[in-house]
Amino acid sequence: MKTFTLGLLGFGNVNRTLVELLQRKDAELRERHGIAWRITGVGSRRIGWRANAEGFDVDELLRSRSLDAFTGMRGQECPSYRAWLDAVQPEVVFEATALNVETGQPAIDHIRGALEHGAHAITANKGPVVHAYEELRDLAARRGKQFLFESTVMDGVPIFSLFRNTLPAIEVRGFKGILNSTTNVILSGMERGLTFDESLRQAQELGVAETDASHDIDGWDAAVKVAALVNVIMGVRLPPQKVEREGIRRLTAEAVRSARNAGAPYKLRCRAQRNESGVSASVCPEQIPLTDPMALVDGTSSIIQFETDIFPGLTITEENPGLYATAYGMLADFIRAALS
Amino acid sequence: MKTFTLGLLGFGNVNRTLVELLQRKDAELRERHGIAWRITGVGSRRIGWRANAEGFDVDELLRSRSLDAFTGMRGQECPSYRAWLDAVQPEVVFEATALNVETGQPAIDHIRGALEHGAHAITANKGPVVHAYEELRDLAARRGKQFLFESTVMDGVPIFSLFRNTLPAIEVRGFKGILNSTTNVILSGMERGLTFDESLRQAQELGVAETDASHDIDGWDAAVKVAALVNVIMGVRLPPQKVEREGIRRLTAEAVRSARNAGAPYKLRCRAQRNESGVSASVCPEQIPLTDPMALVDGTSSIIQFETDIFPGLTITEENPGLYATAYGMLADFIRAALS
Repeated sequence: MKTFTLGLLGFGNVNRTLVELLQRKDAELRERHGIAWRITGVGSRRIGWRANAEGFDVDELLRSRSLDAFTGMRGQECPSYRAWLDAVQPEVVFEATALNVETGQPAIDHIRGALEHGAHAITANKGPVVHAYEELRDLAARRGKQFLFESTVMDGVPIFSLFRNTLPAIEVRGFKGILNSTTNVILSGMERGLTFDESLRQAQELGVAETDASHDIDGWDAAVKVAALVNVIMGVRLPPQKVEREGIRRLTAEAVRSARNAGAPYKLRCRAQRNESGVSASVCPEQIPLTDPMALVDGTSSIIQFETDIFPGLTITEENPGLYATAYGMLADFIRAALS
Repeated sequence: MKTFTLGLLGFGNVNRTLVELLQRKDAELRERHGIAWRITGVGSRRIGWRANAEGFDVDELLRSRSLDAFTGMRGQECPSYRAWLDAVQPEVVFEATALNVETGQPAIDHIRGALEHGAHAITANKGPVVHAYEELRDLAARRGKQFLFESTVMDGVPIFSLFRNTLPAIEVRGFKGILNSTTNVILSGMERGLTFDESLRQAQELGVAETDASHDIDGWDAAVKVAALVNVIMGVRLPPQKVEREGIRRLTAEAVRSARNAGAPYKLRCRAQRNESGVSASVCPEQIPLTDPMALVDGTSSIIQFETDIFPGLTITEENPGLYATAYGMLADFIRAALS
């Protein structure tokens, strides 16, 4: 049995749910994998850099919604990330701060710092994957650590580890899929008779869409996911800006409803295909006939179909992801790193 | 770079295609995984137990369709499996002999012998998985070897390694799917207007169905796959005889066509579900509405949907598997074993 010291960067929904899941799976982690854990650090813009070498009380941590709650906890506040790493001595860092599409910062610095300090780095943040994949992969390899990011594309459904661990010696020629929940939920609502704005508001009330949903609506979220997949599983460097991109703003409620009634609903479809010069990739609204399983993917469900040299079509569908899905991707990465 | 000695048991389509695939992926295996290989043994009912410590000439092996061809090859013929293992000294044995549903023999003896002799054992044969999974798994663990069987359920699409390697600490509550190609091809043909017999004959001409297809038509093939999945990924011992089973013989061409016209085609559906006393499992024809992606799986395609504690629905679909699919499952198992 080995006890791992864990540091959490960002303490919003993803890392809070991860802590709940770690608690729920605690017995299984110990019995089946010989893994125990202790959270020795939590850092976020709101609460600062908090460290407790003995490990935070997990129940207290989960109840603490305010800065005051943290101030009352045992432990110390560190002046910088570097000082926090020294105080926390994390063996695994879970990076779940907000995405910066253009630069991938500060997540890249967090992950670089964690790997250099001797920790495995696990992230739910797409920024580092699309802006610094090769650097961080190579840094991790040099340090004998893991840089893992299974939660970045499909809520923790195994995609990267599928190709890394279970589909060796296979060539990915391309893929297509529906990878953004917010737009899919909005389109489903419009098909049921809502206007774009009503449907967006409903998605926000359901907690699917953020207050500023333009990142999703304009196709950026999907484009970043496409770029992450192309970089990692196709081995071709592609920044998200190079993904041809059109969001769903131009689609009227009437167009969406009549497409559905005609048996070919609109979906915001992602595509990537190898060609002579590398890979061409796009995110665009497309009408998909109901005879194609992709047309049946509604609401928060997602789908990806890979074309490989061995399997002409290998498709993974995630139906109505549960609360724990994204956090599970990080937990699975933790187990992979711990057993590596 | 390590060179592995390989022994092939059975030399029909599966192992011949495996040899072709090993040749095709030779450079990648060397460069990416540090794996080289040499076939030092081939055994089958037709050709006997053939060994060549220096390695058979692969092109000669692939051209040899007759017993005479083998007799002309360099090497020796061994009097028994045991003598063959001693002469071949295999580090990996690929078992691809014919399935015996009731006993799993002689494949179980082959695999037991290979593991006891110090080889990894890789099989495309479901018999050993449903009749001797625990024994062979434990034997492999004691010998520090791998017992792998990714090609047994879905033509080499990763299912077992998915749960073993990429979905740790997850609980499978149940699954449903379409896992038998022959019946699916026959039903597709009947929907297009053929009688059962015509459709069966066409499937046989296409090489999908065997001369005696009753094993498929009566649901045995699917039931054995269900039992293999329940044994391994649900951890519950279930012999194939305990899978409730009804084939497609009672379906008339008219019933099949009118079900399709009514928007709910017949499919031979597999199901397994955890309950208080273990797992209940079945293979039965069911009408599935066209709003369910499972209804869209035609011809040789297959699908499986898992219900887990983390993902309420996680579905894998394989569309029109290529020639190399089943052999690829064995190749991937070889790489896993070699890197273990």
